[in-house]
Amino acid sequence: MSQDRDDDLLLKKNQVAGNGLLDRRLFLKKGLQFSAISTLVSTATLASATAETKKEFDPANPTWMKQPGKAFSPYGLPSEFEDDVLRYPSPNEVVTGNGVSWTPLHKMEGTITPNGLHYERHHNGVPQIDPKQHRLLIHGLVKNDLIFSIDDLLRYPMQSKTCFIECGGNSNAGWNSQPHQAEAGYFNGMVSCCEWTGVPLSVLLNEVGLRKNAKWIIAEGADAFAMQMSIPIEKAMDDAFLALYQNGERIRPENGYPLRLIVPGWEGVLNVKWLRRLKVTNRPVMARNETSKYTELQPSGKSRMFTFPMEAKSLITSPSAHMLLKEKGLYQITGLAWSGRGKISKVDVSADGGKTWAEAELQQPVLDRSLTRFRLPWQWNGKQSVIMSRATDETGYVQPDRNKLIKERGKHGFFHYNAITRWQIDTDGFVSHIYENDETTKNNSDISIDSGWD
Amino acid sequence: MSQDRDDDLLLKKNQVAGNGLLDRRLFLKKGLQFSAISTLVSTATLASATAETKKEFDPANPTWMKQPGKAFSPYGLPSEFEDDVLRYPSPNEVVTGNGVSWTPLHKMEGTITPNGLHYERHHNGVPQIDPKQHRLLIHGLVKNDLIFSIDDLLRYPMQSKTCFIECGGNSNAGWNSQPHQAEAGYFNGMVSCCEWTGVPLSVLLNEVGLRKNAKWIIAEGADAFAMQMSIPIEKAMDDAFLALYQNGERIRPENGYPLRLIVPGWEGVLNVKWLRRLKVTNRPVMARNETSKYTELQPSGKSRMFTFPMEAKSLITSPSAHMLLKEKGLYQITGLAWSGRGKISKVDVSADGGKTWAEAELQQPVLDRSLTRFRLPWQWNGKQSVIMSRATDETGYVQPDRNKLIKERGKHGFFHYNAITRWQIDTDGFVSHIYENDETTKNNSDISIDSGWD
Repeated sequence: MSQDRDDDLLLKKNQVAGNGLLDRRLFLKKGLQFSAISTLVSTATLASATAETKKEFDPANPTWMKQPGKAFSPYGLPSEFEDDVLRYPSPNEVVTGNGVSWTPLHKMEGTITPNGLHYERHHNGVPQIDPKQHRLLIHGLVKNDLIFSIDDLLRYPMQSKTCFIECGGNSNAGWNSQPHQAEAGYFNGMVSCCEWTGVPLSVLLNEVGLRKNAKWIIAEGADAFAMQMSIPIEKAMDDAFLALYQNGERIRPENGYPLRLIVPGWEGVLNVKWLRRLKVTNRPVMARNETSKYTELQPSGKSRMFTFPMEAKSLITSPSAHMLLKEKGLYQITGLAWSGRGKISKVDVSADGGKTWAEAELQQPVLDRSLTRFRLPWQWNGKQSVIMSRATDETGYVQPDRNKLIKERGKHGFFHYNAITRWQIDTDGFVSHIYENDETTKNNSDISIDSGWD
Repeated sequence: MSQDRDDDLLLKKNQVAGNGLLDRRLFLKKGLQFSAISTLVSTATLASATAETKKEFDPANPTWMKQPGKAFSPYGLPSEFEDDVLRYPSPNEVVTGNGVSWTPLHKMEGTITPNGLHYERHHNGVPQIDPKQHRLLIHGLVKNDLIFSIDDLLRYPMQSKTCFIECGGNSNAGWNSQPHQAEAGYFNGMVSCCEWTGVPLSVLLNEVGLRKNAKWIIAEGADAFAMQMSIPIEKAMDDAFLALYQNGERIRPENGYPLRLIVPGWEGVLNVKWLRRLKVTNRPVMARNETSKYTELQPSGKSRMFTFPMEAKSLITSPSAHMLLKEKGLYQITGLAWSGRGKISKVDVSADGGKTWAEAELQQPVLDRSLTRFRLPWQWNGKQSVIMSRATDETGYVQPDRNKLIKERGKHGFFHYNAITRWQIDTDGFVSHIYENDETTKNNSDISIDSGWD
């Protein structure tokens, strides 16, 4: 009973929204709050600290303290005990080397994506490019065509920018009529965030010299698909850059080695990998991925095309689908928010299905067009609960709920799904994905989302 | 001759310090500067863009565009063409599992260290710890002893902080009587920078409840060496935290998996890996690494002990030792600066051996106790030149030159070497390490620095 009294006291003093959402500054407080949490967490803690635990703790006990450990490694890898923290590939079964692999957002913390877990989206596999043979050609509506080797580019001034890259098709299962039941990262994990370093595109465009009628740039990749995408000249001259490094080391093959175009905040497909050619033109190339794909008929009868920036979005990564809360008590609700239009200004969290909201703590510094980590303590009372997050970016744009998104965009979308995601925690602690006005969809059959990748 | 005229024009318009240091905003400028640079770099570029290059560029030519690429990978690795970007191990030959491995700073860009390249310092190898068996005990001068499992800790509120960790013995070859000739990272690369995520230590100390006479915390690791270090209670309650994640994924084994104490800005040895025990005491434990090591007799006759914060320091990573500049012309001087006392406020660069200085561009945002990337364009005239960098931190502390450091600390130091490093570029473009008042040390015999690691 003392446990329950402490829980009540904790709630009475710190609840900031319905169903147990607590003050985000809770853990900065001293005294009563701590004794209350202490009882709470220590109960869990000491419960696990049984006699057997104490035996385990015998200083002489762990085998790894009785023998020398492993040797130095020239290039390190994760612990063998983390061998389930992996990208989840969804290859297209009818097109060789086509498909995606998802970043396991639900098993990660912080904001940086380690290079080994950055999501993949390929149209014809990962080319193994020899950087000594690779060249970049800039031509078209320019004063001098120029060809650059990688060694040439390494002499240019560089800049670093931490930013997310999100596939325009990320979270497309959200368009399904029934809520997709999979781990959070395995249908929302086509977004990753790294520190990219390279040469500002404006420097090279100034060097080749743009002609008056230069309006677009066609970027081409050196993969067997020869990806082509069109980028407006204004964006190319603004903040686009040619990345050679990813989180301090050279770019990974699956992310464009040796050279990738970075177009901060815009659809992933525009961040052309294995970049070999930039053709300056007066109109878009109207390639497959800007016509048959990335073009969507709207309820209005008009089509969306060239929908470049990724809209503000957020996702609770823990607790999230397929996790199990072992007991009622204190938990941290945490997740990620991002916007292709700038910085995240706030993230609201609800634990009562959207009736009431509380503002989450944002990990500082909040960076432009980067994943932003949010956190809020939550006292789960053991009852069925629906948790959700809602991002607002610095332009004032607010992440929509699903009904609003479908009303605007129709039911048959595939790209740019950024609606609020609802996780339902059942009385047994199991977490599942639900839609609003729908509390009974846990057992729907899983819907394949591979078909979209071609 | 037009080449030389362009070089002269570029210098005349943009030189900000002796021997070709150029305005850090150079590449934001339009027009003349660009045409000058264009000629300059394009000459190099187009020189390499010979007929053979153009044949190479034939769109149908690269083999990797003629066949599907490699499949998806659940956990990615660097390109096979980057297999020389590795940590450089210096194992102690007489003590098993003891030694260091260096981060290849000279082959990296940006500020983040990828987890596979974070430097290593072990005393008895890397324990392979089962996180389900691992426990953390907090005891001593506390109101309640508590034992935490990793699952317990994962329920606590977390914070992320990007910060460097630098071994107190980093750059110790700088104390040698002759300049150590090795790549920049292979004697200064015991510093790395990651985004660490975990539980604030103050939260757990508030939970166990400190007694009045609590003054120090003894942190103990679960390796066979059973590392012990003493940390003042004020730092423990200020910004120390228990890291579970490194750059988004769980900590690597060689960096403390499953739990590492992070003490931002302080000697690496205090950031105890494989953390298993925190004993609250009223005095330091006086362990081996705070008495026989990390204690140094000064010219004054007194000894330095408990020298916790790492002083402000900087290093030019490119051009740096053992690199070869193929031709005179435009280069980017870039490197890293950091301070254990806060943010870097500026980095000055000299290309004339310290006669004149210019302020470098600092990559934004500049973060507290993190690696800070600096860059400045440089026009190398092909003559023998000495380049160097000098960091100033937000406390006003200025990185000392080597003579000043030795005057204060004596000639027989091993720890906390943070003097200005001088790189000499010879007329043949080869870069070597020199000391001030010493232009002829390229050919000195290499001095082993392994002996210090025991």
